[in-house]
This record gives sequence, C-alpha cells and structure tokens, in this order.
Amino acid sequence: MFRFDENKCYKMPAHFGGNDYVVASTRYHDTVNLSFSYSTDRAMLEAYIPEAFTLVRPEVSVGFSQCRGIDWMAGSYYNLVMVSAPVRFDGARDHVEASYVLVIWENKTTPILSGREETGIPKVFSDIEDLHVFEGQYFTSLSFEGNTFLALHFSEAVPFGEQELEAMKTVPMDMIGWRYIPKVGGPGAELSQPIFFPQYCEVKRAWRGKGALRWTELSWLQSPMQAHIIKALADLPILEMNEALMIEGEAVMSAPMARVLE
Amino acid sequence: MFRFDENKCYKMPAHFGGNDYVVASTRYHDTVNLSFSYSTDRAMLEAYIPEAFTLVRPEVSVGFSQCRGIDWMAGSYYNLVMVSAPVRFDGARDHVEASYVLVIWENKTTPILSGREETGIPKVFSDIEDLHVFEGQYFTSLSFEGNTFLALHFSEAVPFGEQELEAMKTVPMDMIGWRYIPKVGGPGAELSQPIFFPQYCEVKRAWRGKGALRWTELSWLQSPMQAHIIKALADLPILEMNEALMIEGEAVMSAPMARVLE
Amino acid sequence: MFRFDENKCYKMPAHFGGNDYVVASTRYHDTVNLSFSYSTDRAMLEAYIPEAFTLVRPEVSVGFSQCRGIDWMAGSYYNLVMVSAPVRFDGARDHVEASYVLVIWENKTTPILSGREETGIPKVFSDIEDLHVFEGQYFTSLSFEGNTFLALHFSEAVPFGEQELEAMKTVPMDMIGWRYIPKVGGPGAELSQPIFFPQYCEVKRAWRGKGALRWTELSWLQSPMQAHIIKALADLPILEMNEALMIEGEAVMSAPMARVLE
Amino acid sequence: MFRFDENKCYKMPAHFGGNDYVVASTRYHDTVNLSFSYSTDRAMLEAYIPEAFTLVRPEVSVGFSQCRGIDWMAGSYYNLVMVSAPVRFDGARDHVEASYVLVIWENKTTPILSGREETGIPKVFSDIEDLHVFEGQYFTSLSFEGNTFLALHFSEAVPFGEQELEAMKTVPMDMIGWRYIPKVGGPGAELSQPIFFPQYCEVKRAWRGKGALRWTELSWLQSPMQAHIIKALADLPILEMNEALMIEGEAVMSAPMARVLE
Repeated sequence: MFRFDENKCYKMPAHFGGNDYVVASTRYHDTVNLSFSYSTDRAMLEAYIPEAFTLVRPEVSVGFSQCRGIDWMAGSYYNLVMVSAPVRFDGARDHVEASYVLVIWENKTTPILSGREETGIPKVFSDIEDLHVFEGQYFTSLSFEGNTFLALHFSEAVPFGEQELEAMKTVPMDMIGWRYIPKVGGPGAELSQPIFFPQYCEVKRAWRGKGALRWTELSWLQSPMQAHIIKALADLPILEMNEALMIEGEAVMSAPMARVLE
Repeated sequence: MFRFDENKCYKMPAHFGGNDYVVASTRYHDTVNLSFSYSTDRAMLEAYIPEAFTLVRPEVSVGFSQCRGIDWMAGSYYNLVMVSAPVRFDGARDHVEASYVLVIWENKTTPILSGREETGIPKVFSDIEDLHVFEGQYFTSLSFEGNTFLALHFSEAVPFGEQELEAMKTVPMDMIGWRYIPKVGGPGAELSQPIFFPQYCEVKRAWRGKGALRWTELSWLQSPMQAHIIKALADLPILEMNEALMIEGEAVMSAPMARVLE
Repeated sequence: MFRFDENKCYKMPAHFGGNDYVVASTRYHDTVNLSFSYSTDRAMLEAYIPEAFTLVRPEVSVGFSQCRGIDWMAGSYYNLVMVSAPVRFDGARDHVEASYVLVIWENKTTPILSGREETGIPKVFSDIEDLHVFEGQYFTSLSFEGNTFLALHFSEAVPFGEQELEAMKTVPMDMIGWRYIPKVGGPGAELSQPIFFPQYCEVKRAWRGKGALRWTELSWLQSPMQAHIIKALADLPILEMNEALMIEGEAVMSAPMARVLE
Repeated sequence: MFRFDENKCYKMPAHFGGNDYVVASTRYHDTVNLSFSYSTDRAMLEAYIPEAFTLVRPEVSVGFSQCRGIDWMAGSYYNLVMVSAPVRFDGARDHVEASYVLVIWENKTTPILSGREETGIPKVFSDIEDLHVFEGQYFTSLSFEGNTFLALHFSEAVPFGEQELEAMKTVPMDMIGWRYIPKVGGPGAELSQPIFFPQYCEVKRAWRGKGALRWTELSWLQSPMQAHIIKALADLPILEMNEALMIEGEAVMSAPMARVLE
C-alpha cells in the first residue's frame, strides 16, 4: 500500500510518489512582459485587500507575460495576465512590501495548479492570445469560452538607453498570495494564510511606451466563476494611466523559498 | 479592507467575496459515458492505494464522460477520463465503499480547481477529444501538449432491455479523493486527508459492448508533471478486460455533502 | 513520377493520389441547429448579392449548427454559423431558389477547405463554442483570435406537436455558393461561378422560441481578413426578428450532386 | 446588386468587396526555423512528384517554422511544418529550381486558405506545438484531433560564425505548389497548374545541430483526410540524415509575384 513520507513533497495525485524538498530556483528563459499601471480610488481598491495588509499606493498594476523556455515545464510555455496592488505587511516576524495578487489569468492549467496550491497565488484560466506585433503596436486579448473581457495595447515604444538598462538589470517581482482551502461539508476555511513568494526578472531589453487597456464585463451566464472578478476590476476607475513598459528578460522564481507571512 | 467571514465559502481569489454555504446538488443534464474495467495485478495496484484503505478487487476502471448542460458552469461543458480502483474505508466513524480516484484528466481548468481544492479529487489537464462516432464505433483520445497518451474505443454496442434499464435507473458513483496541500517552504503536508464525495447517475439509455484502450508512455520532456502517472498506469497489466458499457444519463453530485473520512 | 488521372477526384495535395468519382451522399448523424432570421433593408442586403440572382425577400438567416457523427470525417464533429439570404436564379438552364451563402464560420479547417474548393461555399474560420444549455437558455458565441464578434441566444422553447413534426419531416436546405479562384500574378478571376449544392435535414425534434443575436464589430487589427465581413453584416438593420427555431436531426448533403448554375 | 470588377482581387466570400492588385511583399518579422533533410529512395519519392518536373536529388526536407509578427495578418502568428523535395522545371518559358511542396501543415486556417487558393501550396491543418526549449533541446510535435503523427527534435546546436552568417545573409526559399481545383459534379480538374512562388529568408542567427524526426502513422479513423499523406511520408526511408539547421530571421514572400509555370 502507499504510505506518505513526511520528508517528501507531493502534488495531487500524491500516491504516485513525491519528490525530495530542494531549495532551488526555476528559470523562465524567455519572457516578454507588458506592464501597465494606473491610480484608482483608494477605498474601492482597499475593499479587495485583506486587512492583514496596508495599501502602499492606490494603484493597480496589470502585467502581461508571454513565457517561453520554462525549465520546470521542460521548456514549455504559457501566457499570463496579473492584476495586483502594492501592499505592505507588518507582522510579528515579517516586514515586507510586495505586489498583492488580486488575480492572475493563465492559459495553461499546470502552472495554475502549482500557483494556487503551493503558494496561494489566485490563478484562474482564460484564453490569452500571444502578442500580436504590427507596426509598433503590441496587443493581446483575454477571453473566457469565447467572450472577450480584457484587451491590452502597447505602442510608441522608446528603448531604454544602455545606462538605464544597466541600472535596472535585476527587477524584483515579489508577490503575495492568499492561500485559501475551504472546509469540506461546511463554510469557512481549512487553511487561510498569506504567503510571500520571492521572484525577480533579469532584464535584457526594455522600452517605455503608451499603454491602453479595455475591460468588458461578462454576465454570470458567460462566466459564472469569474464575472464578479472582472466586474470588480472593471469598476475600479482609471484615474491616471502611468507610463507603460515592455521588458524582455528572464524570470527566476523559487516556490521552495516562499514562506507563510507571520 | 477585506475581511473573511467564517460563515461564507470562498474560492481563490477569496477577496472578491464568498457565498453562503448551501447543501445543494448540481446537475449535469447531458452526459455520455464509456466505462471500461479490467483485472490487474493486486500488488502493483495496491502500491498506489493509501494504506488507510483496503482494495476490494484488483480492478482498474477507466471511465470517459462527455458532460454537457452543467448547471454550476451555467450550461457549459467538458470531457473527463477517470481512472479508479474499488476500495473500502473502515475508520472510527465511517465505513464506506467507493471508487478511489487514481487520477482524472479533464479538458477544462474550472472543474479541475474545484475538484482538487474542495474534495481532493486529483484532477489534471489533458486535451480530450469529444466522442467520434462512426458506424457503431465510439472513440476518443487524450493528449498532452500534442502527445497522445491514451486512446479509448467502444464498439459492438447492444442496447439494454426495458427491464434491465429499469433495474439500473440510478447508479451510485461515489468517489474518494485524497486532498493533499503541501507545506510552504519545506517538505510534508499542511493538509492530507481522504474525502468521500457522493454522486450518482440517472441512466436514460445504456449499452453493453466491447472496450479497448491503449496507453502510450510519454517521456519526462513530453510531460514532466504527468509522465510518471501515465507510466504507472500503463505498466499495470490488463489481465482480463471486462465487458464495457456506454451510458447516457444525467449526473448529480454534491460537493457540500462531501465529508472528510474518519 | 506522378501523373494525374482525369477520371479521378483530387484534393490538394493531389500527388498522393485521388479517388473515384462516386455520386453519394454523406450524413451528419447528430446535429443541433438554431435558426434565426430577420427582415432587413433590401438595398443594403442586395449590395452583397451577385447580380446573377434576384433577392426573394429582404431577409437574413443566421443558423448555428453543432454537427457530430459526421461520416466523411470518420465520426468527427464541428460547429458552424451560416449567414444567408433567399435568392432565385433564372438562367439558361437552371431555375432554382435556395439560400445564397453570404458567409459560413466553422471551427475546423477540414470542412472549410472542401466547402470552398469543391462547392464555392465561402467558409472562414472562427472559434465557436458548443451550445451552452442552462435553464431553458441555449447560447453560444463566436470569436476570432480572442475577440468576440457574434453572440447567439435562444430561449422560451415550445416543442412542435406530433403532427407539425410529421409535416416537416424533411427540410430542404439547398445552398448556393459562389466559387471564386483568383488569377495568379494579376487581378481578376481564374474561376468565378455560382454553384448549387443540394442538402436537406431529417428532423427528429423541433422547438419554436425566441431568438436574439448581437454583433460586435472588430477592427482591422483584430481581424484583418474578416473585419469587413462582420461590419457589413452588423450594419444590416434588424427590422423585425422572426420566430426562432431549434431543430435536432440528421443532415444529408451531396457535394457530388452539386452543379454549376447556368 | 453586387458586380465583380475584373480589376480587383477577391477572396471568398467575394461579394463583400475586393482589393486592388498591388505587387508588394509581405514580411514575417520574427521566425524561428528548424530545418531537417535526409536522402531517401529516388523511385519512392518520385512517385509523388508530377511528371512536369525532374527530381534534382532524392532528398526530403522537413522544415518547422514558428512565425510571429506577420504583417498581412496584422501581427498575428502561426506555426507550420513543410515537407518538400528539390525539383527542376524546364518548360516552354520557365526554367527554375525550387522546393516542390509535398505538404504543409499549419495550425491556423487563414494562411491555409490563401496558400491553397492563391498559389496552390497544399496546406492542411494540424495542431503544432510552439517550440519547447529545454537545456539545449528544441522540440515540437504535430497531432490531428488528439493523435500525434510527427515529432521533431533539434539539439547540439553550434552557432554560425560571423563570416558564415554574413555569407548566408539572404536565403532563397522559392516554392512550387500545384494548384488543383476540382470540377463540380464529376471527376477531373477545373484548374490544374504548377505555380512558382518566390520567397526568401533574411537570416539573423543560425546554428548547426543534430536533427531527429519520428513519424507515427494514423489510421483512417483517426485522420480520414490525411492518413494516406502521413503514410506516404512515413514510408519514405531515411537513408542518411543530413546536418540540421536552426535559423532565426525574417521571411519575405510575395504572392502577387507568383506565376503559373509554363
């Protein structure tokens, strides 16, 4: 019969065997990233930030990443769009600032499962087009079962100079997720905890430019699990759009170095 | 700021709000199911059954379901293939027999997330063709990122008679999953528990027939997260193939009535 | 070396061999169809009808079909949405009324190729959701590379009575397409001809109901090959929506019996 | 009513309007190409080469291209695998050497339609994974409706030196397709002609390496339209595998400059 080994790491299905715990990073060798951000209404945004945190700025970030050459997926690839807000955690032990992840859409299931179960990153599925690139315009769109809900557009790219690039060689991308596993057969949580997940990006090339994004709300019929998420985000006013960025580089992340915030 | 309500049920991302706990069933209004099973080597199969259970018969079941008209998904659809073995649990409180789920492949992320996080059903993703139907042959295949690993074929269908059908009106399909949520920053489990998930099928039409299935092992490069699962299952000898079944009907399941086995 | 045989039928690539010409029908064993139609502005619609025809009624039909168990595809399946108008052809030889196909969207390439090259049916690709069915609502949507451009919704279904059903047992669905193959290295046609393609549907069950459809225009950036088609159709006013129909049945079509209209 | 203009270029559906004929090239701004070739049995290969040509060498080329930033598709993308043989055409007017295209698989319909109808390139659909890149291994696989039929693998890459690269700056990739449009209502061709389609690649980076490819035959049930193509190609013996190449660059092609060979 199968017996769990407390010195192993398992993923469901666990009974086919686990792996040793190794403190190692995994590398995404080829990523293209579009970075949008805008100031919004503080109170409206705070409504979605757990009270364990303080909101550093009333700012929403929307980041698209086209990820290729992913080591832990044996060189496979996926796209993601992350929506986050800058928060600070001051606990008994930990004092950190990071991006609190409101939601991440990804177009593959495999990284969604790891993200949710291992580090509490609230990933959900959508179709996400690879970047279309035409005459200086970079654009993509997200849809759920045939219904578009987000379009992203980047243009007027101006490349970073040598020196600027040197200065931003390594960009921290630390995230905080809230892992929530429900009780079985009743309301409430079996597990509910904030998790700090350190990551960074090694920048190869970067551009400043103009960003535009357009939310389209979906009805419950169109997306029963996500309509409320999309509505919440679409309702946040875009008070002022910041400069957008496009970055090519490698991403390095280490789930084994994540920790529950205390 | 967002505050969790212990009387609510949440899914990640939790901070956009939860729902009341309601003991309700959800219905899959239109399902077509192919059911294959075969006897195998007891010791080899037991290697994948947690020692909390006893194996009732050294038998592997492989069931394909094409599910449409799913209430909780607002009428959407997906396909799945479940591999399971019949087990018995005799605990301090619970005494049940059910199908222990070795793995379920599904071709949509949404039900994979609910299944794993809410009831410990070890679902993973693959592409699964809708049923091809040609001159009395019903067949489908499963692939991961372009690599076929399982082909299913049903033929020589003989319809059930009126009386037989009457006798099997409602077929129990109770499942047991093992929910495993890993610790953050170290080996071992934060949560590790067997969960009983009651379900049944209301049969509308049924056929006996001949079943055939063919596993193709994948390399680690082709499927780093699933190659060991496919290999384990492909290695189980098919000692004797039982009669196969095709069933059209409605499936009824109730995650709120699931319970941790004790 | 490969030599063409003028008594054979070829598809590109032709050099792997052709087939005998056989006057045979092919059957789609399992289709679900939603049928919408509405009156529109005559002049606007006529702008898209070649002058070889007369427009019978200023009416646009939009039909969704979910096709399964397709014989010539070895039991495979696809979805389509056809937009057409009723026309009459009075030529030197032929005098027929049929649906002039303005466009058909299909979600598989294989039938698109046959339709275009063999019978001039102007099929193009889009993603088309299988029918979602929830509490008496039947709906689907079409999108191109992540951008939704058409949503269809059917509700308030009232089943046909026994007698009505008997009366509509076999429904003709004859189509006319315009086959156009361009010259190489210059403007104009190498081949430009109207083709009559006879088909019919054997109805098993049918419902009357309420139909709704919503076009969303796409920009050239979103769909450079189809934006003008979608715009043309979206601009046709919906003067009066007719009763919608839902039909389950089998479709029978015979490309070998198609003929160039003269 | 709609009237064709002989000075315009149309695509089906034609009645929504045509375009002016412009002798222009279109650019694929970002392509990654894997190039495999091997010697094979001359007679077996010649069986698939129309007698209008002579086979220059008994050699099969298999080329994978991952194409991004495609101008005529407004910056969209697709993957293709081309199988070809080097041929010579000596006609009354034309004397050319080029790659005779045995088949091209592409994972999008739009370029399949243009290729077939405008230049006779025999493109058909399959799923084609983007390149997986892991520890110096580059690989992909092709499948049709869930059934893998070709796997490609490139490794041991050695980059071209500065000078070598300079020498191969622009690589001609001229193709010949055979455009075949069948008669309606009978066997034989309405149109049957060889077409020369000039193209070239601007090389940015290149590597020599080791190539491997594995064909898997499909049954008629698995792929009724392509099983015979795959079988024909899989049956060609791989007598000697040549050095494989990986090339990053831009592709330039000009359908308007294509011409029927005479």
